[in-house]
Amino acid sequence: MNPYRAPLDDIRFLLNTFDYQGQILPLPGYEDFDLDMAMDLLDGYSKYCVDVLLPLNGPGDQQGVRFVPETGQVLVPDGFKQAYQGFCENGFTSLPFDPEFGGLGAPFCLATLASEVLIACNKSFSMSPGLTAGLIDALEAHGSAEQKEALLPRLISGEWAGTMALTEPQAGTDLGLLSTKATAFGDHYKLTGTKTWITFGEHDLTDNIIHLVLARLSDAPDGIRGISAFIVPKILDDGSRNPVFCGGTDHKMGIHASPTCVMNFEDAEGWLVGAPNRGMVAMFTMMNAARLNVGIEGVALAEAAYQAALAFAQDRRQSRALDPKKQDPDHAADNILVHPDVRRMLLNVKSTTDGLRGLVAWIAINYDVMNNSTDPDTQKKAADLVALLTPIIKSFGSERGFQNVSEAMQVMGGAGYTADWPVEQFMRDVRIAMIYEGTNHIQALDLVGRKLPMGGGRLMQTFAGEITALIRSSKDDPRMAPFLGPLKIEAKRLNETTMAMSMAAMKDNEVAGAVASNYLNQFALVTLGYVWCRQVQAALALPEDDPMRRSKLQTARYYVDMVLPEAAMYAQKVSVGKGPMVDIDIALL
Amino acid sequence: MNPYRAPLDDIRFLLNTFDYQGQILPLPGYEDFDLDMAMDLLDGYSKYCVDVLLPLNGPGDQQGVRFVPETGQVLVPDGFKQAYQGFCENGFTSLPFDPEFGGLGAPFCLATLASEVLIACNKSFSMSPGLTAGLIDALEAHGSAEQKEALLPRLISGEWAGTMALTEPQAGTDLGLLSTKATAFGDHYKLTGTKTWITFGEHDLTDNIIHLVLARLSDAPDGIRGISAFIVPKILDDGSRNPVFCGGTDHKMGIHASPTCVMNFEDAEGWLVGAPNRGMVAMFTMMNAARLNVGIEGVALAEAAYQAALAFAQDRRQSRALDPKKQDPDHAADNILVHPDVRRMLLNVKSTTDGLRGLVAWIAINYDVMNNSTDPDTQKKAADLVALLTPIIKSFGSERGFQNVSEAMQVMGGAGYTADWPVEQFMRDVRIAMIYEGTNHIQALDLVGRKLPMGGGRLMQTFAGEITALIRSSKDDPRMAPFLGPLKIEAKRLNETTMAMSMAAMKDNEVAGAVASNYLNQFALVTLGYVWCRQVQAALALPEDDPMRRSKLQTARYYVDMVLPEAAMYAQKVSVGKGPMVDIDIALL
Repeated sequence: MNPYRAPLDDIRFLLNTFDYQGQILPLPGYEDFDLDMAMDLLDGYSKYCVDVLLPLNGPGDQQGVRFVPETGQVLVPDGFKQAYQGFCENGFTSLPFDPEFGGLGAPFCLATLASEVLIACNKSFSMSPGLTAGLIDALEAHGSAEQKEALLPRLISGEWAGTMALTEPQAGTDLGLLSTKATAFGDHYKLTGTKTWITFGEHDLTDNIIHLVLARLSDAPDGIRGISAFIVPKILDDGSRNPVFCGGTDHKMGIHASPTCVMNFEDAEGWLVGAPNRGMVAMFTMMNAARLNVGIEGVALAEAAYQAALAFAQDRRQSRALDPKKQDPDHAADNILVHPDVRRMLLNVKSTTDGLRGLVAWIAINYDVMNNSTDPDTQKKAADLVALLTPIIKSFGSERGFQNVSEAMQVMGGAGYTADWPVEQFMRDVRIAMIYEGTNHIQALDLVGRKLPMGGGRLMQTFAGEITALIRSSKDDPRMAPFLGPLKIEAKRLNETTMAMSMAAMKDNEVAGAVASNYLNQFALVTLGYVWCRQVQAALALPEDDPMRRSKLQTARYYVDMVLPEAAMYAQKVSVGKGPMVDIDIALL
Repeated sequence: MNPYRAPLDDIRFLLNTFDYQGQILPLPGYEDFDLDMAMDLLDGYSKYCVDVLLPLNGPGDQQGVRFVPETGQVLVPDGFKQAYQGFCENGFTSLPFDPEFGGLGAPFCLATLASEVLIACNKSFSMSPGLTAGLIDALEAHGSAEQKEALLPRLISGEWAGTMALTEPQAGTDLGLLSTKATAFGDHYKLTGTKTWITFGEHDLTDNIIHLVLARLSDAPDGIRGISAFIVPKILDDGSRNPVFCGGTDHKMGIHASPTCVMNFEDAEGWLVGAPNRGMVAMFTMMNAARLNVGIEGVALAEAAYQAALAFAQDRRQSRALDPKKQDPDHAADNILVHPDVRRMLLNVKSTTDGLRGLVAWIAINYDVMNNSTDPDTQKKAADLVALLTPIIKSFGSERGFQNVSEAMQVMGGAGYTADWPVEQFMRDVRIAMIYEGTNHIQALDLVGRKLPMGGGRLMQTFAGEITALIRSSKDDPRMAPFLGPLKIEAKRLNETTMAMSMAAMKDNEVAGAVASNYLNQFALVTLGYVWCRQVQAALALPEDDPMRRSKLQTARYYVDMVLPEAAMYAQKVSVGKGPMVDIDIALL
């Protein structure tokens, strides 16, 4: 039983909270997408996801993908191909892309919020259009005019699908180790090597698949500076089969309906994208949006698990309310929602899930501003926030998402552990989000090692400026005090942690590595504190009896009282430095 | 690939740390089991588990159990029946039981430590002997002489298996709601009703299955005070089939080789165990050891996952060491064990897993003292510690065990998410431990609502006395100071939390429910702090170059610096009280 409904009311509230109209509608080309039209778009999209894709989610998990060794074919579960065709026909693959190539030209932030609904309904399915979108981004940014012309219309329409073929057996986190070779062949190249963990590397959703492949030119330098990006189509222009073959699919804990392929390139024909040895630039273009999307996977499945747990709890009676006044004389046991611990678990999930959705909405709006604003200062501020907070969304979103799915299962007891409910699948499906698109520790190193030092600490100053502006704008409102007070304390503590960590890391490289993961969590909790205060501010503008206002105020209270204090614990762990990790002798582990 | 080795060196160290010889060997009947013989026993047991049961674990997960609707049969995976027969022939089902009925008469603590190895090798398999052991405990304590004579020899030898048939669809956490009826029929009863979630309720490991069933006599009072316990055999003395049938098995996230059955009692013949309406007493006899065992499930699978992650890490090279001096000039990348964050994750797992194993060893030794000591004061002290800390072992052991398996997977990246390694199965298998044998919140209520108030707070005083005695015995040893210092701080904080919580709970019932789960985690972290200080004390008595000494000191340091500080966070959450949980309007969730 899967009771999922798309959280469109919350999305509308968040678009208002982060001033969608004021931020987005002045951007060139977006004039058509006012809030009502935006919500209409999301509403239609959500209906298709709930009506068509959600019913395929459980069966797709059970059936899984099938690899045919004789032919190298990979068959998706029953119904997926038809559902994909409908998804394309509705134009859902084309939302945020350039109308010159058939895109709808909608704001990126709407496509991003829509993707939560898609993932919640069918995470495995969502991964194919997700990867195609990454390839489109890379081609829009780095492809030649000819490449764009040839590929973008078919990718944007969904007629063809894309992949990201980066990883090799010896080169995962460390792409500098990759060894796939590209040898010049007339105006293009021939690629030889083996790629692993290639999501939707082979499948029967589309007639053609376009691989974005990282490989080395024969004269390339070692390491990360010798990597180039290539386009390698499964089917060549003349209709012949390019020798890029699936060698097998992995058996995984979850996302059974999403093929994870070994791909063998056997002198496959490829075309350079961008400049030689500059492949990592194209990779990072894909990665930014992809990382945001992986954080959303945590939000999506936590939301779906929350709704299942709540539906279960609303029906379930066990034990007596601890407060005699709350006991129901007509039944031998009370509904479990009277038990404070059941509420605690539900609010753990709700306060962090709604908080993360708010963070995603804020950063996704800034993404559009970054890419489309004509004012350099506005653009730079937006770019700072996107760069700083994307690793936090990816890492904290996936980690807390996994914990939240587990907490929702706990509300349901044994029922949640069975396949009668979708939560056990969500737990299996969401766990990979902490690993792929850069493990969560890689996100933490990105935050600490790249984003904090950028521009002499400018990104952190931009973020602190947002907190200061919020505090200033609300300082005369006593209703905000219970929320702003804890935020101020934790923002100050984060500042102190950042300073102390930076000092220690300057003297010793290993400190940053040792503390980065705990630091990211501290940072994330403060960021969600900010996002919740923004939501409280917006909620206070609603009528007193508006259920959204009351829900937001009470959920925010739970967050500041019961979740935000975790930030102090992470600060304490960061303050310990590297000693307990680094000093231990490996042989004693 | 599953590289598991039984942690026998650690077990020997722990038996010494908690003075196995001094505590156990004076107990009547245990004279034969000195430390060397104990380790020989564990060694033989472990060999069988690793050689025979471990190879069946992955295949058993993939094949699962098969329910045959036509016959009501449940078939275990290939190889399980033969492995079970070997397990019985080796006498492993009989370790801790009364020699009068064919048991080996070994200390309970050895059987308990052995069970970690059994679970690590094959958790699904372990559940059948585990449940039979619970039934044996209940019969030894409450069965009539005739029942013992008839049943114990065959249960102890493993010829017959046992179950615990408690739960019904409407009665899980709240057994007072159960409605299975027992009607008098000559010298015994006929039982009618449906039980759910019955582990190994039906299977083909043994010819007969003995169900311990909770049911209501026709004149029984409502609720928990009207429940009686019955023995219901699958096959009656005359060889005929008793009408107790499996109606189906659940499809679960994990433990696929352990059948979870719906059991229909259709006028099945049953015999009362103990006094009428006193069934909960028999239930709790089974539950105590069962709860300890569920905590051990977390230890066992975290240990097995740790070993897999370590084996993976020892082979894997990715990225460069942050400290240039640690870079390996012979390779393009360094072994990932140089990365501080990989060590952080491994030490998170190791410090809590070894800490929990120590706690289990300490409490299991006290279990024997409680049951066998002839000195009333010694006995009472042991009973206090067992009662107080059993819910902590069950809850914290299962919760941290789940987190630890996930952390071990994170060390392994994508490889850990695939079925090429056993960690993804461990994660699926271990998650149920937080739910069954009383959910973790039920453990927290047991701690706060039953164990703390017992004897006017005597249990807590006994526990505090142990901490004080340790501090006193080591106060002149400066090498202990870095460990005892943090323990003193957190023990004092726990005392303050306990006092404040008790005061608040006296005025308001709901407070205890709202804070119990966080309080249990605070308590558990302090308890592990105590256990680690005991281990440090014992390690310091070893020669300076002993690897066990060095490993224990460094792991303990990680625990006090990086894990123990979490206790302060839980204290903070407890101090908030019930407000954020209780005040929210259910309709707004």
